[in-house]
Parts: sequence; structure tokens; C-alpha cells
Amino acid sequence: LSSGDFGLLSPVRVGSAVEAATGDAALLSAMVEAEEALARVQGVEIDVATVALDVRDLAERARSGGNPVIPLVAELTARDERVHRGATSQDILDTALMLVSRRCIDLVLANLDRAAAALAELAVAHRDTPMAGRTLTQHAVPTTFGLKVAGWRCLVLDARDRLDALTLPAQLGGAAGTLAALGDASLLSAYAREVGLAEPLLPWHVLRTPIGDLAGALAFTAGALGKIAADVLVLSRTEIGEVGDPRGGGSSAMPHKSNPVRAVLVAAAARQVPALASILFGSMVAEDERPAGAWHAEWQTLREALRVVGGASALCADLMEDLDVRADRMRANLALTGGLIVSERLVTDLGREAARDVVAHGAPPTSVDAASYLGAAGELVDRALTRR
Amino acid sequence: LSSGDFGLLSPVRVGSAVEAATGDAALLSAMVEAEEALARVQGVEIDVATVALDVRDLAERARSGGNPVIPLVAELTARDERVHRGATSQDILDTALMLVSRRCIDLVLANLDRAAAALAELAVAHRDTPMAGRTLTQHAVPTTFGLKVAGWRCLVLDARDRLDALTLPAQLGGAAGTLAALGDASLLSAYAREVGLAEPLLPWHVLRTPIGDLAGALAFTAGALGKIAADVLVLSRTEIGEVGDPRGGGSSAMPHKSNPVRAVLVAAAARQVPALASILFGSMVAEDERPAGAWHAEWQTLREALRVVGGASALCADLMEDLDVRADRMRANLALTGGLIVSERLVTDLGREAARDVVAHGAPPTSVDAASYLGAAGELVDRALTRR
Amino acid sequence: LSSGDFGLLSPVRVGSAVEAATGDAALLSAMVEAEEALARVQGVEIDVATVALDVRDLAERARSGGNPVIPLVAELTARDERVHRGATSQDILDTALMLVSRRCIDLVLANLDRAAAALAELAVAHRDTPMAGRTLTQHAVPTTFGLKVAGWRCLVLDARDRLDALTLPAQLGGAAGTLAALGDASLLSAYAREVGLAEPLLPWHVLRTPIGDLAGALAFTAGALGKIAADVLVLSRTEIGEVGDPRGGGSSAMPHKSNPVRAVLVAAAARQVPALASILFGSMVAEDERPAGAWHAEWQTLREALRVVGGASALCADLMEDLDVRADRMRANLALTGGLIVSERLVTDLGREAARDVVAHGAPPTSVDAASYLGAAGELVDRALTRR
Amino acid sequence: LSSGDFGLLSPVRVGSAVEAATGDAALLSAMVEAEEALARVQGVEIDVATVALDVRDLAERARSGGNPVIPLVAELTARDERVHRGATSQDILDTALMLVSRRCIDLVLANLDRAAAALAELAVAHRDTPMAGRTLTQHAVPTTFGLKVAGWRCLVLDARDRLDALTLPAQLGGAAGTLAALGDASLLSAYAREVGLAEPLLPWHVLRTPIGDLAGALAFTAGALGKIAADVLVLSRTEIGEVGDPRGGGSSAMPHKSNPVRAVLVAAAARQVPALASILFGSMVAEDERPAGAWHAEWQTLREALRVVGGASALCADLMEDLDVRADRMRANLALTGGLIVSERLVTDLGREAARDVVAHGAPPTSVDAASYLGAAGELVDRALTRR
Repeated sequence: LSSGDFGLLSPVRVGSAVEAATGDAALLSAMVEAEEALARVQGVEIDVATVALDVRDLAERARSGGNPVIPLVAELTARDERVHRGATSQDILDTALMLVSRRCIDLVLANLDRAAAALAELAVAHRDTPMAGRTLTQHAVPTTFGLKVAGWRCLVLDARDRLDALTLPAQLGGAAGTLAALGDASLLSAYAREVGLAEPLLPWHVLRTPIGDLAGALAFTAGALGKIAADVLVLSRTEIGEVGDPRGGGSSAMPHKSNPVRAVLVAAAARQVPALASILFGSMVAEDERPAGAWHAEWQTLREALRVVGGASALCADLMEDLDVRADRMRANLALTGGLIVSERLVTDLGREAARDVVAHGAPPTSVDAASYLGAAGELVDRALTRR
Repeated sequence: LSSGDFGLLSPVRVGSAVEAATGDAALLSAMVEAEEALARVQGVEIDVATVALDVRDLAERARSGGNPVIPLVAELTARDERVHRGATSQDILDTALMLVSRRCIDLVLANLDRAAAALAELAVAHRDTPMAGRTLTQHAVPTTFGLKVAGWRCLVLDARDRLDALTLPAQLGGAAGTLAALGDASLLSAYAREVGLAEPLLPWHVLRTPIGDLAGALAFTAGALGKIAADVLVLSRTEIGEVGDPRGGGSSAMPHKSNPVRAVLVAAAARQVPALASILFGSMVAEDERPAGAWHAEWQTLREALRVVGGASALCADLMEDLDVRADRMRANLALTGGLIVSERLVTDLGREAARDVVAHGAPPTSVDAASYLGAAGELVDRALTRR
Repeated sequence: LSSGDFGLLSPVRVGSAVEAATGDAALLSAMVEAEEALARVQGVEIDVATVALDVRDLAERARSGGNPVIPLVAELTARDERVHRGATSQDILDTALMLVSRRCIDLVLANLDRAAAALAELAVAHRDTPMAGRTLTQHAVPTTFGLKVAGWRCLVLDARDRLDALTLPAQLGGAAGTLAALGDASLLSAYAREVGLAEPLLPWHVLRTPIGDLAGALAFTAGALGKIAADVLVLSRTEIGEVGDPRGGGSSAMPHKSNPVRAVLVAAAARQVPALASILFGSMVAEDERPAGAWHAEWQTLREALRVVGGASALCADLMEDLDVRADRMRANLALTGGLIVSERLVTDLGREAARDVVAHGAPPTSVDAASYLGAAGELVDRALTRR
Repeated sequence: LSSGDFGLLSPVRVGSAVEAATGDAALLSAMVEAEEALARVQGVEIDVATVALDVRDLAERARSGGNPVIPLVAELTARDERVHRGATSQDILDTALMLVSRRCIDLVLANLDRAAAALAELAVAHRDTPMAGRTLTQHAVPTTFGLKVAGWRCLVLDARDRLDALTLPAQLGGAAGTLAALGDASLLSAYAREVGLAEPLLPWHVLRTPIGDLAGALAFTAGALGKIAADVLVLSRTEIGEVGDPRGGGSSAMPHKSNPVRAVLVAAAARQVPALASILFGSMVAEDERPAGAWHAEWQTLREALRVVGGASALCADLMEDLDVRADRMRANLALTGGLIVSERLVTDLGREAARDVVAHGAPPTSVDAASYLGAAGELVDRALTRR
């Protein structure tokens, strides 16, 4: 048997609150909750709290039936025959996955709120801090760090809204979703209330809306966090040096190195989640009343997506709270092109053709201070900060 | 130069309304609209309607600058210098992509409404039509075709709600999103109104929320349609024969063949969109004020996702409107296991262990009529149909 | 800290040999091997075998530097300063990942050999067992189970060849791949020999050929196994019943159920690996001398791909060794269309138009025995079996 | 009907040789070739060269049967009844796709050879040009531009080898792969020879090895090209300026801009192909004798992958042939950290702890010239260049 995994290859999520909420032990515990809640709505108080469950052993025994609920039910019914009455494995595992998802999403939401608060402070503080706007790797026209950060906050709030809008329902349907051995449709609301999840309109064993929604919201969130990380990584470059991670990571070889490790780990997360989401979206194509593979492909994939986003959101919030911003470097870099960064102004002043000629024939005869060609940046920051 | 593509390898979308709305000509036309609207909010009425634009030529000339707006602007400004004032290529291309998306989404919504209406009729008509519930490829317990179809409708409505909730904003920001050569933030609402799109809170050149949202909603929709197709394909199998496509496709070799072509094409669509969405989610990681690759990776990918979902939704609606349902085959198949399909009932009656013994030792001594062990299926159909 | 994962959500690989070879403990052990081999080629015999290493603790300490080698080196150098001289974290982690990959691939190869042997036997046994050929879910023309199985074997051998052709090199380059603190290029062969991996032409810290190759070969293998599983799942359907899994899994609710669990788990694996491979291919885009995220995104992804393919290949080999083949059901199903399954023959005899007419107007006037219209199936089986 | 696409949203491939080879017209022509070759091995010389084929019309008529071969065969048999005898649509379409793939791969190979030649020259010229080695965005230790470029060449040669190893076979099997209406297995070699493709061991209608291999080789190639582009993009940054694209693209707004457009388009390509490959790998799971969706999902996906890689390889070769390398900027950047870039040397000299102390307390007391701490870089370049 395996000696277990503890995140050795996944530093992004080690030690995060989401990690504990997604471990095998947490899943197992959620499955037991699902069984207990079912028994309660059936008018039975089962006593399984003291059943000793060995995760490793249950994982091993999950192979023959293809899911971990079967051996769990065997353990629990050995104690009390009234467990799992009328239910199917999918009722319990889906409900457990939704319980775990619910808790993870709440943790992610708290991280995003924390990041948004830190970003609001940064946006206010740097509302008028000029820096080079960069497009396709080249200096374009000036912008402000405040506007950049206000944009990051917008994305974080967008992610928060999408996660907040998720409806995560309990699952109860029995063998083929007809509640045949369970009762009538009123059980759906009773069970949902008992287990603390949303009430489904129908058993959703093959109507994978909650999974597709989680896929979309998690991939979106990873993208939002990844944008912030990508910018931090560019701005942290030795040659640019406009921001820094004060808790930069060391190197095993070079004593001078201070690596933007948190941004690196968030960027790595953003590379993984879209592909994981594609598996989950693909699993919506769930034939029959239980599909032969699509459902099974969701479990580990969803858990991994939750973990990676959970860890990345915590790291990103931490980083935003103590990001080192170097306005002097921003101003210095702004001067690098000797005024060309405001060449767009020439177009306004001289027309497109004449402006091209001027630029082609040497330094632009511009008296425009790069740091003052900021357009509506300040106004846009204010506008963005009105959003809650 | 290319002689052009007309969908020879993409039957799913040929001839669909979405195809015309997403062709190069439609894109080009939307870019011109974006320029015209910009001029209007700048108080200028440009006259470019008569500029002869050659898509092939513009595509060719898009290479050196890396986007099609640059040669388009060259064409238009040759006619009127006041075109594109203060704007950047991304303003025009993003706005055009949102215009095209808006039109496509509306077409998809109409297809989904049509599918949902057809499914509501089927659910009512087959509320009590018994059939085998199948899990992991095996007969499990009975269900009804009405419940299956009510579930399909639920998914279609879920997809509709997600598409309907999309906010597709105009793009206007100028070279680095500061509106520096354009004006103040009030332009955002004016331009959005003029071009007929939503008003953005900020220029979203590197805040790719609309793209991420489209990715999620389109992948979700493809998954929903794919579930329906997967079920139709299973039920159409020669050995099962419970549904059929009355417009089944012929074969180039076998005169007797009637293939469920529409379901096949929808299933093929569902295999592609999640991966396309993963590209789009990945492009949210857009560094700087314009990313060096992430933006460019979106264009063709988004267009393809729109097209594939557009075509698949039309085919699915068509298919639902004339699906051939064979209640007699459903009933015949239900009898295939000689009563074992209601073995779950034995558990209720005899307990888990005894039930297993009975089944292991021969045909179950059950007098239960398979077609009557339907649990709350009818009630669930009614419940599902209350949703609008 | 996490209480660890033991595969509760991943039955496909629990208990497999690959699982043990990919656990955190195995990774840690491989990292120590990499350090020991490096010391040896540097002429030093370090004694770190007795250093007590706590995976959980190292995982936790991996966060600040962003990789697990940093805390490991801290542990080992506390014992012996001569550890890790001139190396960088990536040298050790990449080498460890290649050692783990090497062992996994060998295990997968053995599984594929076992599957191929079983398939050869099945192909011989059923060389002339007629069954319905099915295209687009419909009976097309007859084929043989032998030909189907010979095809499966071909795919398995293709996968084997691709895995067998993999070159998995040691990694050694130092901080930026120049060997600056290490020595000259002769170290590459010495280290490779010492650690038991292939010699690289160059340090490949940002030349991710081995990762791209693993991605391709693992996705290919998953596809090959997935095809077999897909066919088994179709043929196992209650209505078709042409094959069965004699160790079918039970249900938590229905005593009669015998689910093709092994094929289900293989099918679930095949849904995941292509997306994991897409992450790995994407990580080939590794900027600079070490990328800020692409490298980190590989670790867990590669491990998961190895595990899933490892588990799936073992299950598939097991299943092929005891697949239950029901030639009687094949023959019975062949008769289902009342002879239409040989309608293609009519085209040959009557021409395309006349054949269509005949079929349209009733049962075909064919005296052809469906079971004899097998074309070159037998010859093709023989031909396929000549391949080793 | 669609007015056609000409690459308006795909500048990466417009005007490339691959584009013409992959257009609808090229596909249609390859299908006709496949039919002609089949007739010839059947001893018939058909005369269809003068049949007027309208791509748009055929695309439209492809919908009802779900593939373009059916209407094509209708057109051709109207002229000559002996067309398509014994064949199935998949024989023709798969063969056509292999013909198109063969031609595209040859074009890509030529591009890669061109890139490799340019890179060899650059590696020789800059064998000893020092520059900063960068890891996790930070200066690490010095390296040379020659070594970086030698690495790029290695990746290009790796891609070339993988593409060169592809076996692209003709497809011939008939309705279910038994050759029932065609003849015996000797037809496989005759047809392959006639049509100019490799001979398959078996009909591969559901043994998608060639597709999986193409997916892997194309994704690998995209990754290799993407690595080069990623480096060019970093080194092109305004603040770094170590390389430049002398044909940089202009901007619609800023006359001074010179954007590294070719690298941008290659980078965009590298973001798309892994996801396209994941669709193709997923389609290996092709149930039955023709799958209901997996096959159809390959067509457009494969074509797009070929095109994108074809265009990107041409752009990358062009760029390597005229890349502007600025050794002076490399040397200037190397000095940016005031000697810290050789802090690794301190570890060798003083030991890990002492080195950390020195660095922490100020500038390192090092007399090492950054430009001379190059380790085995030159030797590694020579070693890499021995590879052909």
C-alpha cells in the first residue's frame, strides 16, 4: 500500500487551509456526514462516529467496485444496518464532493476578499504613480501602477462573484435517480437542508451542472490570479525591478538570489487549472443514468482543481498584502526610451504620417513629460474603486 | 493566397445561422462597425461604407503587424483621416469579437429555447413511459423516458441561463488602456451605447473576463448538448433501438444504414469545446498592457468555439423536434433481465444479505412489475417542468 | 499539516506497482539517489542513508523556496557539507523525476506485454468468431472478434513501442546550465552512468524534450487503453452482452449488478491523460534558464499521468487475461437485422441504386449468411499476429 | 452559405505554404486523389478530373450524411459508376487527411531545417558571447548566447526527428475494416503504393495511431518553437533589449513601436496546439468499427494543428535567419547586479554559510569578471553542434 502523499510536489497548496479540507481524510469524513444526514432524514439516528475507518484500507477496497463508498458502506452497515437505505454510491460521493467544494470555495472567497482589500489599498496609494505601459513586450504609452492594480482588483472581484454565485446541491436519487427506494421528491429539500447544501431541482447524477459550474469558476479564478502573477513576474525581472516579493525564495546554489516564488507558484497553478477544467467540462457528457468513466474522471480532477486554486489564492492574497512597490524604478524605466513612449501624442498633434516621419528621423521634438501623459488613468482608478 | 474555407471539414456548422455570423466577412464588417461607432462618439460621421474591402488581401496584410486592424485602418484612413483616432487595434478587434459573440449567443439562445420547448413536449408525452435505467452500461432499476428528457431540458435551461447571463462589453482604452488619446471615462458608456454592447467598468484589454466567461458558458453548453447526444447515441444502437433519428444519414457503402448523424455531430462538437475553452481560460493570463501571444491565441479559438456550439445547438434543437421515440422497445428491453432490474426492491423487502443470496441463487421471487417500480419519476418530471 | 492522500479518489491506481513507485516517499528517495550519485561522480562518498527524512515536514518547508530540494539539501548538508556541490535544485528534482518515470515506464511496459500476450491468445481463439461490425452505433457489416482483438493488440504494441523508445536522461547543469560550479561536459556522461539514466547532449533544464516525449507517449498509451475499454463497455451492455468482466464490481444498492468496473476505470483514465499531457506540452515553453511557473507545473502533472497510465495498464492487462467472451451472443446479435447487415453485398451484386431500392422496399432477397460475409478478416488477423 | 474564411483571424499561417496545402480545396483534391488511386488498384482508370466540384456546395451537402465524402461520391459516380467500389467514406477521408498531413509535415520539416541552419550559424558566431543567465526572472549566473541558441537548435532538431519518424499510412478497409467488398489484404500495400503513403498493418479506422502520433509530434514542435519565441520575447523587452526582430511590426497608434510580431505569433501558436492535441489524443478512444463523434472531432482539429504549426515554423525560421543580436546590451545587463551574478562562486570558495553572510552584508568581495564565469558553456556549444 502507498505510504501516502503530503504535497511534496505541490508546494502551492501545502499548509493551506484548502489542503486540509481536500485530503482523503476530509473526503471520508464528508462521506460519513452524507450517510448520517441521510439516516436522519429517514428518521434514524445512526451511531457511526466511533467506527474506526482506515483511509488506506478503504482506498484499497474501493478498487473492486470502483468507488470508495462501497467499502465505506460495508464498514458502516456492519455497525448499523440502517445506513445507506435506498441510496446509491453516487448519492454519497457527490454529496461529499459538494460538501468539500463548499468549504473550499468559502476559503477561496476569503482569500479573494483579502486580496481585493490589499489591492484597493495599493490602488489608492499608487493612484498617480506613473509607469511604463507595455504592449507586446515594448514600452507603449505611460500608465499608472494604480490603474494596473485596480485592474487586478477587478479580476479578483470578478472571480469572487463567479465563485459566490455557485450553487452546490446535495445529491440524492437512488440507483437511477428515481428515488425508488427512498421516497418522494420532498426528500430532496429535506436532505439538502439536513446536509447543509442547496436543494437540487432534480437528482443530478447525470446532469452535471454543478461540476461544469465549478470547472468554469475555478478556471476563471486561476486565470485571474495568473494575470496578477504574470504581471508581478515581469515587473520583478532584474532589469525592470518595479516590484518585488519581500519574502522572495532562496536558491540552493546562489546566495544572492531572491526569487518571486509566490508569483511563480501562482503562475504554475494557472497553467494547470484550464486543462483540469477541460476534463470536468468533458465529463458533462455523461451517458445513461450513470456514465462508464465520465463520473470517475471527475473526482481527483475536481479535488486537484480546488486545491490548486485554494493554494494559489492564499499565496496571491499574502503577496498582495506585502508587495514591495518601487515607484522610483517605475519612473526611471519610464525614461528609458527618451520620450518615445509618448510618441502617440505626436499623432494627435501632427497627424499619423508626419508623426511617423518625426519618429523615424530621430528623437521626437516633444516637450511632453512622460509621467504626465496619463490620460484618464486616475479617473479610471476612482471608477474601479467604486465597485464593491 | 488561400482559396478559402467553407466548412468542408466542419459539417456541424455548415449552413447554420451562426456560421454566417462568424465568417471572415462578418468579422470584417464588425470591425468597420466598431470604427464607425468610435467616430460617431467623437462627433464625426465617417463615410467608409463604400470602401471596397478584400478579406483575402487584408488577411495577407495582417501578417506584418500581427493583426487585421492595422491594414483595415490603412484602408479606411486613406478615405478619411478621422478614422481610428486615439484607438488601438485591440479596441477595434475586441469590440468586433464581442459584436460577433453577441450575435452568436443570441442565435444559440434561440436554438436552446427551441430545444427546451421540444423537450417539454416530450417530457409531458412520456411522463410515464417506463424504460430501463442504465448505470455503468448495465440495467440498474427502471426509470421513465419522461424523466430522462426532463433532465435534458434542465441542462438546456442551465446552459441558456449561463449564456443569458453573459455580459459582453465594448472595448475602448487606447494604446495602454488609459484613454490618453481618447478622452475621459465617460467615453466608455458613450461608446458602448453607440456600438450596442455593455459598458465596461474599465478597459478590459488585459482583464479578460468576457473571454473567460464565454469560455465557461460555451464549454458548459457543449457539455449539456453532448449529454443529450450521448444518450441518443446509446438509445439508437441497433440492439437497443429505443430512439431514432428520422432523418438518419445514409452511408456511402451500405444501403440499409440510417445513422444518427445529428447526434454524432453534436457529440463531436462536445469533444472539441472543452479544449478550446482551456485555451481561452489560459489566455486570461495576459501580462502587461497587451500580452505577447495570449491575446492572439483567442481570436480563432473563440470563433471556432462559437461556431461549433452554434451549429451543435441548431442540430440538437432540430433533432429534439423530430426525435422518434419507441416506447415498445423500451418496454421490451425492460424485460430483458427477467425481473432482475427490480432487485433493489429485494433489499428493501429482505435486507442486503438475503437479497444477495436470492439473486445469486436464481431468478428473484419477485412479483414486482418492472414497469411499475418507477419511484418518484412522474413527480420529478412535474417538478422539473415547473421551471421556466 | 495534511494527513496524507492514499488514493481514496483514484481507485484506478490504488495498489498498483506504479503507485508505490510514484508516492512522495519514492520521489524523496529518488532525490536522495540523485544527490548520492552526484557526490560519487565528484569523488565523494556521502553518508546520508541514515538521515531521517520526514516527507510531511519537507513538503511544508518546500513552500518558501518553491521546491522540495531546498529543504532536502538543508537536511543533508547538515550531515555532510559535501552534498549538492555545484548543483541546482532542478538538477536533483529533474533527475529524480526521470528515475521515477523510468521505473514507471518499465512497469507499464510489463503491463502492456502482458496485455499483448493475452490479446494474441484471444485473437487466435476467436480468429473466425463472427460478430456485428458497428459504425456510428449501427450494425454495418459483419466482422470477427478476432479482428477486433488483433486491432487492440496492435494499439497496445504501438503504445509499447512509443514508451520503449523514450530516452530519459539525467539532469545536470548547475544554476544556469553551464556546469560553472561543476566541471566540464564529461560530467554529463559520468553522472548519467552513475545514476542509471541516459546521457543528455546538453543540460535540458529548459529544453524539455523528455517531458514532451513522456507527455506524448503517456497520452498515446491512455488512448490505446481507452479504445479497448470503450469497446468492452459497448459489448458489455445488457442488451449486447457479447463480453463480460468475470470480476465485475458489485453495487451498493442492487444485488444483481455486475459492473464492468475495470473497463470503467480505464475509460476514466483515458479521459484525464490528454489534458494532463496538454499541460506538459505547454510547459515546453520554458523561458530563460529556468521558467517562472512552467517547470513547477510539470511535477504533479507528470506524476499523475504516470500513475493513471500505470494503474490503467495493469487493470487492462488483468481484464484481457480473463475477459469473458460470448460467441453465442455475438452470433445472435448478428441476426438482429434480418440480413440487412450484409446489404453492402447487394451493392456489389446489383449496383448502388438498385440495392437502395431493394432495401427500401423490404427485407433484402439475400441468401448470404451474415456469418460468412467476413471479407479478409481472418487473413488480417494472421497478418496482425506476425507483428511482435 | 458562408462566404468563406481566408485567415483573417489567423495571421500566423496566412500566406504560408502550409495554408494552401490545408485549405478546403486541397482537402477536396486529396479526396479525389484517394478515389482515383483506389480505382487504379482495382484496375480501373476513372476519368473524374473534369468533374466540376464546388467546395461550398459539397460542404453544404456533407451535413446530412455527416461527412464530405458522401456528396463527393455522388458527384463522381454520376460521371463514372466505378468510383468508390467497396470503399467507405472513412477510407477516402482518412487517406486524404494523411496526404495533406504528409505534405504539411514535409513543409514543416523544411522550415525546421532552415531554422536549424540559421541557429547553427548563430551558435558559432556567439559561442563566447556572455549574457546573464536568468532563472525565475532573476539574474542567476552568466551564460552565453551561443549556449542558449545551441539549445534552441537542439529542440528544433528534436522536433524534426519526431516529425521525420512519423508513419502516415493509407486507409483502406471498407465498411467495417474487413475489406469485405474490396478483396484481400494484398490491397493494403497496393493501395498505399498507388496513393503514395505508408502501408498499414491493418485498416486503422479505429486504431488511431497515426492521429495520436501526429498529435504528439505537432504539440512537441509547437512547444519547441514556443520556447524559442518565449526567449526572444523576454530578450526583446524594452528594458532588456538583447535581441530584436528587424522586421518588427508597427502599431496602429504609436509610431515608435517596433513589436516582435513574429515571436508573438509563434507564442500564440504554442498556446493553441497542446489543447488541439488533447482533442486528438482523446479521439483515440474510438469505440466500435467507427465511433460516433471521435472521428468527426479529428478533422478540423488536425487541420488547424497542421496549419498553426506550419505557419509558426515558417515564421520562426524567418526570424532566426535575421535575428538582431546585441552583444553590447548583453554585456551591459550582465553588469547590472554589480557582481552578484557570480555569487555562486563564493559558495565554492567560502562554503554555503559564509557566502550567504557575505552577500547579506554588501557587495561581494569578488574579483571574478562576470563575463568569464561561463563554466563549460563553450564546450557545450561545440558538443551540441556535433549533432546533425
